[in-house]
Amino acid sequence: MAEKGAKRKSGKKSEAVPLADLLRIPAGRPVDLSSYDAAATPGGPADKSAGLKDTARMGEHLADLQERLWAASTAGDGRRLLLVLQGMDTSGKGGTVKHVIGLFNPSGCRISAFKAPTPEERKHDFLWRIRRALPHPGEIGIFDRSHYEDVLIARVRELAPHREINDRYTQINRFEKSLTDDGVTVVKCFLHISYDQQKRRLLERLDNPDKHWKFNPGDIAERALWPTYQEAYEIALARCSTPEAPWYLIPADRKWYRNWAISRLLLEHLTALDPRYPKADFDAEACREQLLGSD
Amino acid sequence: MAEKGAKRKSGKKSEAVPLADLLRIPAGRPVDLSSYDAAATPGGPADKSAGLKDTARMGEHLADLQERLWAASTAGDGRRLLLVLQGMDTSGKGGTVKHVIGLFNPSGCRISAFKAPTPEERKHDFLWRIRRALPHPGEIGIFDRSHYEDVLIARVRELAPHREINDRYTQINRFEKSLTDDGVTVVKCFLHISYDQQKRRLLERLDNPDKHWKFNPGDIAERALWPTYQEAYEIALARCSTPEAPWYLIPADRKWYRNWAISRLLLEHLTALDPRYPKADFDAEACREQLLGSD
Repeated sequence: MAEKGAKRKSGKKSEAVPLADLLRIPAGRPVDLSSYDAAATPGGPADKSAGLKDTARMGEHLADLQERLWAASTAGDGRRLLLVLQGMDTSGKGGTVKHVIGLFNPSGCRISAFKAPTPEERKHDFLWRIRRALPHPGEIGIFDRSHYEDVLIARVRELAPHREINDRYTQINRFEKSLTDDGVTVVKCFLHISYDQQKRRLLERLDNPDKHWKFNPGDIAERALWPTYQEAYEIALARCSTPEAPWYLIPADRKWYRNWAISRLLLEHLTALDPRYPKADFDAEACREQLLGSD
Repeated sequence: MAEKGAKRKSGKKSEAVPLADLLRIPAGRPVDLSSYDAAATPGGPADKSAGLKDTARMGEHLADLQERLWAASTAGDGRRLLLVLQGMDTSGKGGTVKHVIGLFNPSGCRISAFKAPTPEERKHDFLWRIRRALPHPGEIGIFDRSHYEDVLIARVRELAPHREINDRYTQINRFEKSLTDDGVTVVKCFLHISYDQQKRRLLERLDNPDKHWKFNPGDIAERALWPTYQEAYEIALARCSTPEAPWYLIPADRKWYRNWAISRLLLEHLTALDPRYPKADFDAEACREQLLGSD
């Protein structure tokens, strides 16, 4: 065993143990968020500078895999990936889209930000608007908030009867199972920040007039419900981290680690999909000659 | 005058004459595409290396202006920008999305690639699917092909009666006028490549199995219609380059120049919009105290 370990290149820890295994929330067990350090950097590079460098390095690899996934879809491969981002206000959902999804070719990304449902959306069941926003074959879908809001804010704010909310966990698991059966790789990331970190980030927004537009006085009222939200998250993470569509807990107090970890998770999942450029369904040599025969 | 000129920093030529003025197709005059060199670099940096550098440098500025535009929309500013990309096969529409739109925050971009209309789209007038894909306030919309296909391939392939196609130019001008009246800055770019350059790019796709998926044997048949397409473009550019929504001719044989020029055009238009972060509609100091008063 010592020999085997010695053969590994030093500094390549993260390739030995998949990050997914470090961050995955085990299925069927209670979750205690207070036991997770939001400033931790599990499996991550040594420091911010190394993290930024490694994330940039991953960018090219991610864009290449995305192109292969897209190319494969043109030949009938129905696979796609869906990244679900959840987290308290200021946890960095928007920053993740900017910095991580910004590494991809924008033409293959389908991004949806879910806010309070519109009157039309309210007329349908809570998964209706979600289904309409799913990635098409070959695409990377990104949900900034998602159907989980219907068991988070809906639970905390009692926006639906308790029994109805309780049923939703089962509906969500069934829905996500149907997605994975249909070729969707579902990567659900909970951006875990600390109560203190949220305060710092809210104050930052207040202290900078250019960031006032990101602030909503209602954020303070939501913050007062922090323990209730944490509890709602614990229940959702415990009940909906399934073998098909597990939740990943991303310590998110450090933005560089958050971006690195989500990039890395996407890289691991896309690498596992191993999408291939499709073989030509035409005679390339004949086309070549035809082209060369023209002017 | 000489003194005024002397005060300008040297090497800032491109800031002296807006690129838009160099590339704009004059309204109401015939267009002769053969008089435009597709390998030219009007107003551009000296060479590829300087071009790549300057495009990267613009990225930060573009993303900043985009954030301001988005922020302004949260306070009711209805303005947005629509980039329309047209050009022959291999002219670089997809590459522009990847490299230029890739400079922006993907969450504020609404990208649509228009292909042959679906059966549902055929049931409606040709602008129906276009209207549904328009950018919302604060967004950057990108059309990879557009309503112009309905006066380009539709004209070349006689997909509609001549009279109907003839009417479409007027409909397009009226439609685009309604967009600009509604706060949409319309930036229409024709990616101009040479017949020879297209041949080289098609051969590149054939020579590299990883690029076969981008090739369609039908591309050769389209290429045989090159002169008819050029003529259809000349008519569309001449009839639809209006003061409100002019066409820009982007020499596109050099990819680095194409990316630089479109980035620069977007920068000029966004700078002219001068979007501002909105003023807070709440009492920031009171919020600050409330936050500091909590734990």
